[in-house]
Amino acid sequence: MDKQQQDQLKREAATKAAMLVENNSVLGVGTGSTVAFFIDALGQRKAKEGLTLKHIVTTSNRSKKQLEGLGFKVDELADVDHVDLTIDGADRVDEALDGIKGGGGALTLEKNVAINSKKNIWIVDESKMVAHLGDFPLPVEVLPISCEQNFRKFAQEGLKPQWRMNGTERYVTHYGNYIIDLAVDPIPAPHGLAAYLDQTVGVVEHGLFLNVCDQVIIAHSDGTIETQER
Amino acid sequence: MDKQQQDQLKREAATKAAMLVENNSVLGVGTGSTVAFFIDALGQRKAKEGLTLKHIVTTSNRSKKQLEGLGFKVDELADVDHVDLTIDGADRVDEALDGIKGGGGALTLEKNVAINSKKNIWIVDESKMVAHLGDFPLPVEVLPISCEQNFRKFAQEGLKPQWRMNGTERYVTHYGNYIIDLAVDPIPAPHGLAAYLDQTVGVVEHGLFLNVCDQVIIAHSDGTIETQER
Repeated sequence: MDKQQQDQLKREAATKAAMLVENNSVLGVGTGSTVAFFIDALGQRKAKEGLTLKHIVTTSNRSKKQLEGLGFKVDELADVDHVDLTIDGADRVDEALDGIKGGGGALTLEKNVAINSKKNIWIVDESKMVAHLGDFPLPVEVLPISCEQNFRKFAQEGLKPQWRMNGTERYVTHYGNYIIDLAVDPIPAPHGLAAYLDQTVGVVEHGLFLNVCDQVIIAHSDGTIETQER
Repeated sequence: MDKQQQDQLKREAATKAAMLVENNSVLGVGTGSTVAFFIDALGQRKAKEGLTLKHIVTTSNRSKKQLEGLGFKVDELADVDHVDLTIDGADRVDEALDGIKGGGGALTLEKNVAINSKKNIWIVDESKMVAHLGDFPLPVEVLPISCEQNFRKFAQEGLKPQWRMNGTERYVTHYGNYIIDLAVDPIPAPHGLAAYLDQTVGVVEHGLFLNVCDQVIIAHSDGTIETQER
């Protein structure tokens, strides 16, 4: 499949997701190439049907700019009572609709928006679907203060830590922290690993999004669009 | 007991702690009025016996300045392989030597140093000792992004959240976050609450220091100094 076909498929999946957004609701918007098509489709609904949203919050400046360019006002999560629905991508999704996110480095922001959303829908292409979580390094955002100790501990625990880099420098998150990618594959006992990471002092957030996604919209390479519900 | 007597007692407890520091070891130093006396005593050991430390890390600028004033070089936790012993205060300590810390707002820094120390000794006066943790609001450091949602959830959960204030503004931590003090008293099932807070998205760290303290040195108002071991 060439890029043009792939984009067409992403656009179809994104348009399907945009149809699920209810008028006058509070919407969370993630980031990524498919989400960009979703925002386009949202703009079309605004132009054609006069779609109005009570609030929109987003997890990236790129999505924010695109939304504002279409005339939507973007608010901060702190300003809204709750989010009705969040649309985002994912790096890997397993058969239980648990996922890995954070390949783009915004896992903390993404998890905070997701966890405060009544419903989460992810749009992915079929290459992201896996039987068991793995095939993608798990991002862990750590405070600089004890990042070296965290790194060594992860190595001892067999989690294959790697520093996220930005050229020759360590990648720095929106919050001024570092990311350690755990290259262990497959992810051993994701719920157990999530509990371990939650309890690890120095870990701000990790990319295991468990019991978060309610519905996944999958763009298959054969041109079909599939929906799976939790 | 007047302030002078109280200070004399703190000084005695702090001197006792300073005697436990081994030559050429890696030392963690907390903060607070008793810790200030501890640093004084450390300076005296340096002057009298030529006490040398391989590294010192600290959790506050105040302690750092006092140590540097006595000719000690202060390093960052990231620069050291491990810490042999950390001396700190605590806001409340129960009979199992579990504690609440973070009344001063540096809980994240303090926990990162403590958790990476082979041994932790706390120096307190007897007013800090309690049968069961409570009698002091539990500090929880939260990311601004979802702090409002966290606050409302804590209220729903019966945890009596209160914003930590700095005059009329919210108190901002070293990491640019807010502190929500949980005024629930006594602390219900500290180990369960710690697990709940660890798993709560948006929580950077909390002030429950469980299974951390190895020894507590208690200055009693009757003038005696007591040591308890875990």
